Amino acid sequence: MRMYDIILKKREGLNLSREEIRFFIDNYVKGNIPDYQASAFLMAAFIKGLNDSEMTELTIAMADSGEKINLSGVNGVIADKHSTGGVADTTTFIVAPIVAACGIKMAKMSGRGLGHTGGTIDKIESIPGLNTSLSMEEFISQLNEIGLVVMGQTLSICPADKKLYALRDVTATVENIPLIASSVMSKKIASGASTIVLDVKTGNGALMKSYQDSLQLAEKMVRIGDQAGRRVSALITDMSQPLGQAVGNSLEVKEVIEILKNNREGDLKELSIMLAAEIIKTAGLTECYDNALELANESLIKGNALKKFEEMISAQKGDPTIIDHPDAINKSAIQYDLCSDDNGYISEFDTYSIGIASVELGAGRKIKEDTIDPSAGIWMHKRIGDKVGKGETICTLYTNDENKLRNALEKLEGFMKIVEKPCNKPKLVYSRVTEGQVTSF
Amino acid sequence: MRMYDIILKKREGLNLSREEIRFFIDNYVKGNIPDYQASAFLMAAFIKGLNDSEMTELTIAMADSGEKINLSGVNGVIADKHSTGGVADTTTFIVAPIVAACGIKMAKMSGRGLGHTGGTIDKIESIPGLNTSLSMEEFISQLNEIGLVVMGQTLSICPADKKLYALRDVTATVENIPLIASSVMSKKIASGASTIVLDVKTGNGALMKSYQDSLQLAEKMVRIGDQAGRRVSALITDMSQPLGQAVGNSLEVKEVIEILKNNREGDLKELSIMLAAEIIKTAGLTECYDNALELANESLIKGNALKKFEEMISAQKGDPTIIDHPDAINKSAIQYDLCSDDNGYISEFDTYSIGIASVELGAGRKIKEDTIDPSAGIWMHKRIGDKVGKGETICTLYTNDENKLRNALEKLEGFMKIVEKPCNKPKLVYSRVTEGQVTSF
Repeated sequence: MRMYDIILKKREGLNLSREEIRFFIDNYVKGNIPDYQASAFLMAAFIKGLNDSEMTELTIAMADSGEKINLSGVNGVIADKHSTGGVADTTTFIVAPIVAACGIKMAKMSGRGLGHTGGTIDKIESIPGLNTSLSMEEFISQLNEIGLVVMGQTLSICPADKKLYALRDVTATVENIPLIASSVMSKKIASGASTIVLDVKTGNGALMKSYQDSLQLAEKMVRIGDQAGRRVSALITDMSQPLGQAVGNSLEVKEVIEILKNNREGDLKELSIMLAAEIIKTAGLTECYDNALELANESLIKGNALKKFEEMISAQKGDPTIIDHPDAINKSAIQYDLCSDDNGYISEFDTYSIGIASVELGAGRKIKEDTIDPSAGIWMHKRIGDKVGKGETICTLYTNDENKLRNALEKLEGFMKIVEKPCNKPKLVYSRVTEGQVTSF
Repeated sequence: MRMYDIILKKREGLNLSREEIRFFIDNYVKGNIPDYQASAFLMAAFIKGLNDSEMTELTIAMADSGEKINLSGVNGVIADKHSTGGVADTTTFIVAPIVAACGIKMAKMSGRGLGHTGGTIDKIESIPGLNTSLSMEEFISQLNEIGLVVMGQTLSICPADKKLYALRDVTATVENIPLIASSVMSKKIASGASTIVLDVKTGNGALMKSYQDSLQLAEKMVRIGDQAGRRVSALITDMSQPLGQAVGNSLEVKEVIEILKNNREGDLKELSIMLAAEIIKTAGLTECYDNALELANESLIKGNALKKFEEMISAQKGDPTIIDHPDAINKSAIQYDLCSDDNGYISEFDTYSIGIASVELGAGRKIKEDTIDPSAGIWMHKRIGDKVGKGETICTLYTNDENKLRNALEKLEGFMKIVEKPCNKPKLVYSRVTEGQVTSF
């Protein structure tokens, strides 16, 4: 078999066999296939497409390219949750304790942030002392003991995906639905959970801007998971404005704690309950969605989820006193209120720019090597549909550097639209996607 | 400007500006753009296409990427001829002396052979002593003195084309008409001739198998040359069988000498006269094609072309006695007659396999590092349309190695078709292509 012939076949729009895809992945990881052949192949696959079977084979070959987490030593149902990335999206820290308190084992391996959306590991590390570099033994034992663990992705998982993603990133082959689906699902499959719930964002702050693209991505990811023998479900959810109020690491942890204390309503809480119910139902704890919703709600309201979150912090050597004093980690030298210059109703946010402004403030990385400022970020006071008066605060910016504030304010120029007449709030959840089925909400 | 954005634009099928194409070529040659970005771009360009203006800009950028031959010190009209590559195609050595004898300066820079077609330099070097490694001063002074010179392409011409071609060769991006046209024409333009005549082969021994593809390639090359201010014309000619009788370096030189001596008729002579006439007319020596044909014919029949060929051999330190004793360079230990196993008429040759069999005998290279055996090759005794009897010799194989003979015979299995009823000879010249005009023959 020759890589040349595999490129040629895809260039001509022909379908590749399992053996051909495996040959490519195995030899690319080993360094036998040079980057210039891999990038020619990726461009051909980008333009000519990969069918479902090629995409599944690619995913499984990538999952097989490195270590696969063996969770056979964990008792009970093991679930994982994945978001395609949004701004002010901290559902993981609310959903995971809720379902863990219901008896499902939540095994989260997550990455750091790059780009306009924050990374789960960066967020949770704003809790003083909290350790996310666990050994596999620690990971499994914590999962057995408290049913909830969040650790940084080990380098040994899916090396093929890491190498290919880095190449796609510099050869304009990222924004392709089958390639994105394969990349996400290869890591989920290698991570070993039997139940996977996907939160596929849609809107101007999401990877997929249109509902149709989001639906396609959701369908493909669900298909792959199904083919790989997992229980999978996806919700397509709104990302036309920041999900929660907090954008930035310690601000987001503070908001999470407020919600787990049941002190705060809103979209973030609502979506978290729905995602938790989705996991509870998909994992088979109950067949009825309303029951699942009730279980999730109860777990939050009774404080069981908060307790689970506290157990996790303690188990991972974090400081549990932040639960009672979340403001202790929100100290930044500069706070700046960005105010409305008009009267009316908010009809639109440029969510991507809000994410980028937060990066400018110090909450994220422009290049991999950047260090982040945990206390930097933005607190959103308003949402789409809200009435605002001239001079009223739309959001507050937090940073420790005047220059960063200036840069962030530049990114926020024209970041919202105000109209005269009242306008509707966007839908929070559009649909649920399971294998062969799409249910509108 | 970023290469990433240029790849992205082409991936989306958008047209690139002159500046973008030049940025790519200039920085690729300098090593600022890595191969993996270039190959992703090439695949996008292959699939999404390059329009005529992009193709022309690419050609000119590649021509500008290295040394451009300055022929301002040469008196008179300077012409160049290019064939897209065929089997038993020695027209250069007949056409060039014919037109040089008519007063046109023929400046040929040529390459070596790789693949199933022979290289001009390999062929002419089978003349003992002949030197093709000339300095630019020697090249120009010989051009002024005798009006005819053949030298190996210097490394400093079109480095961008060399680097890109090597990459295309391993990333399945060779067989693309705009990329082929750019590659050929960049070298022609850098070589400095004002008149360029192209021999675009069509058929099973050619790069372009179908007439439609050959026509498209011819049109694109003519368009580029016209845009670059050259006088360009192309003939689309048959390559459904070897053009001459000789396949292999010294055998081909022998056939050339026989034709220049006016001792031999046939397609090779006929096409050479037509190509010579095409150059004479395109260069502006006469406006009338029939006049041009007459001039070309006369140059051959009167022996002026042979004399020019001899002058060139002497000027380049070759042994001119081969003119009188061409068999002196055709000594090979093994001669093998391949005979017909049936009675009937030849309807088809697998021309590609004949070329490959000749390589197997030692006449060509499988990899760049191979050395060639000048005396190896094949002499074709029959052509399409000929009547043959069982046991009659179709061709004779020449080599110095029993193993090579065996390998060549393997390649020739089923290399011809014999049918019961008489069949037509293929057309020799299909059409002439000039800017905006196609004339059928």
